[in-house]
Amino acid sequence: MKNFYYGNVKLENGLKFGLIYNPSVECIGAAIYTKSDVQAAPILVSKQADSRTIRKQAIVINSGNANAFTGQKGLETARYMATVVARKLELNDGEVYVASTGVIGRHFPNFDLEKAICKAIEKLSPNNLDAFAESIMTTDTRSKIYKTEFEINEKKASIVSIAKGAGMIMPDMATMIACVLTDVNIEKVALLDALRIANDSTFNCISVDGDTSTNDCVFAIADGSSENPLIKKDSAEYKIFLENLTKVLTETAKGIVNDGEGITKFITIDIKGTRTKEEAQKLAFSIANSPLVKTAFYGESYNWGRLMMAMGKARTGLNFNIIDLLINNFPILEDGNYIPNEQDENTIRNSLKNHDVSIMVNCKQGNQEIRIWTCDFSLDYVKINADYVT
Amino acid sequence: MKNFYYGNVKLENGLKFGLIYNPSVECIGAAIYTKSDVQAAPILVSKQADSRTIRKQAIVINSGNANAFTGQKGLETARYMATVVARKLELNDGEVYVASTGVIGRHFPNFDLEKAICKAIEKLSPNNLDAFAESIMTTDTRSKIYKTEFEINEKKASIVSIAKGAGMIMPDMATMIACVLTDVNIEKVALLDALRIANDSTFNCISVDGDTSTNDCVFAIADGSSENPLIKKDSAEYKIFLENLTKVLTETAKGIVNDGEGITKFITIDIKGTRTKEEAQKLAFSIANSPLVKTAFYGESYNWGRLMMAMGKARTGLNFNIIDLLINNFPILEDGNYIPNEQDENTIRNSLKNHDVSIMVNCKQGNQEIRIWTCDFSLDYVKINADYVT
Repeated sequence: MKNFYYGNVKLENGLKFGLIYNPSVECIGAAIYTKSDVQAAPILVSKQADSRTIRKQAIVINSGNANAFTGQKGLETARYMATVVARKLELNDGEVYVASTGVIGRHFPNFDLEKAICKAIEKLSPNNLDAFAESIMTTDTRSKIYKTEFEINEKKASIVSIAKGAGMIMPDMATMIACVLTDVNIEKVALLDALRIANDSTFNCISVDGDTSTNDCVFAIADGSSENPLIKKDSAEYKIFLENLTKVLTETAKGIVNDGEGITKFITIDIKGTRTKEEAQKLAFSIANSPLVKTAFYGESYNWGRLMMAMGKARTGLNFNIIDLLINNFPILEDGNYIPNEQDENTIRNSLKNHDVSIMVNCKQGNQEIRIWTCDFSLDYVKINADYVT
Repeated sequence: MKNFYYGNVKLENGLKFGLIYNPSVECIGAAIYTKSDVQAAPILVSKQADSRTIRKQAIVINSGNANAFTGQKGLETARYMATVVARKLELNDGEVYVASTGVIGRHFPNFDLEKAICKAIEKLSPNNLDAFAESIMTTDTRSKIYKTEFEINEKKASIVSIAKGAGMIMPDMATMIACVLTDVNIEKVALLDALRIANDSTFNCISVDGDTSTNDCVFAIADGSSENPLIKKDSAEYKIFLENLTKVLTETAKGIVNDGEGITKFITIDIKGTRTKEEAQKLAFSIANSPLVKTAFYGESYNWGRLMMAMGKARTGLNFNIIDLLINNFPILEDGNYIPNEQDENTIRNSLKNHDVSIMVNCKQGNQEIRIWTCDFSLDYVKINADYVT
């Protein structure tokens, strides 16, 4: 993906800026935003950019300050970020996406924003991806870059996904920002549609702590440089693109959970056999967000009763007396009956020492299902979040 | 309340039994149960008792095992608990409430249940209330007994509330069991109605961790020994009773939160000016159950942005740009504008070191309101719940 350039700068006041730029005027963009009622200023500016033009050639992101709940002044700052980038890179208004991540409710400190962005521009290079990925991190412990390569109509194509996110992670969406860059040639409507579908089964299927941010966004830019015939919605090529997009976003989503604040366990939850998708979702997230379930897994404690508690409180009206339940592929309940003997219990207990844990529930009351990913609640989660703002 | 007798026994296998008995055949009972889809065996037995007769002369509770998700065998155990109590105290079937609290999904160990209950009966005495209150505790650090005295038609009356609960605390209801004992003479329908109304503004207004138990129940027994003329629903006397019941249940509910697992902060949340009660509830519990809010308060960290995050993710559709927000009575937002200067911020930061914290939000978009109580998420919460089952 030779046409994507990455820049970054770290300021003395602790703020970091990351910049993506693609010089091709063929670039189109699509984005998905947080569903929170409290939307950060950069979200509003990016949404406005979407309404102006489908062309998107740059993404500017700062970390260290969310620019959320910062009123008119914050909105002007977010607009100014976009304007400076547009002016310096000779783009039009609306061709730049803006995002911010960090503490909510604080104005930017006084500093020369234009100078900062110029510094990030000076660094622009196709080889600077790692530094860009690092520049958007907050409590993340590692940068998150995922790539996939494939062929469309015998043309080589690729997708790169760069993300940040570690806490405040929950569907719709998370304190997460992802930039999805691709060289495919695709219709705007097909790009947005694919992004929405892939988002539903990836970023909307993770939870670190059940908290949803004011600043979430996923940006996609496609520059068409792979020169495949234009991909139209629902075509065979669209399906190939969607499949690869889903693949790379799945890796990204799992990467975010795996970097969950204080994580010691990566937990995959499969719910099957519900009457509706919504029921499966409710059960899965009721388990994923239960502090008692999460602390039990942290303690490597065999406490399957808390899973029943969590599913019961979801109030789906399902009958739990007939379900199958497996932990780490060991049967716990079959048709609602408890299976393990004492020896089995020891084996299961031992398996909980592994970093990866799986929970599988088959409700056997329908044909809907969902898979989601989450992590445990550790002492470090509390430490990280008790101290974060100070 | 001379007619209420309390018994208890602690077994070598770790189980504890508590017993309340009133010899008067004038006793009537009313109860409220968990709304979880997964209901423990004793809940089912107590519900059945409600359907048989309004007379209730005994409550038997064990701690150490929730007898939840224990199938037919668990149901037989719960029934047997009630039957043994009834037989020994010469009561009829259906005159005994049963409750259990402890680990979910385990059968009782083998032991002589009848002998255990006989031992608890031997201890029955009006002076044994403290030992009873202790016998129903699990992770509670202190027993919870609250009393109120008042007059109805010039007759002295009183209400005693004994409760357990420390974790898995969330409306509808919590891992909590409360026994509400009174000597008033009251219609069954009025007792249940008053219990429901008082429950709504007390036990349904607390949250420790957002988790809801399979075993929650509130039992009320009234023996009529204060000899006031029968209280009928919606009478002036009913209002006096309800007022006093609400008072004692408020103290009980706050007492449960104040004994919340690992608590270091007691947090009162007032939401005002919403269009509906449901909106106020959503905002309040979205704040109360947010791990990021709870860990921030634990860290005594001035991070009001997380309150905005929590309210935003509740998806009420309210406009947060015009709200007032106070923390510990200090104005943070007025009409959506940030108020504190640097000196104020230091004062507010200092106030967060207190054990009691208050949050007040006025949305100014309606006339509904709610007050709820919660606590922070501490390192000890994680430690307690990582280790509890083992």
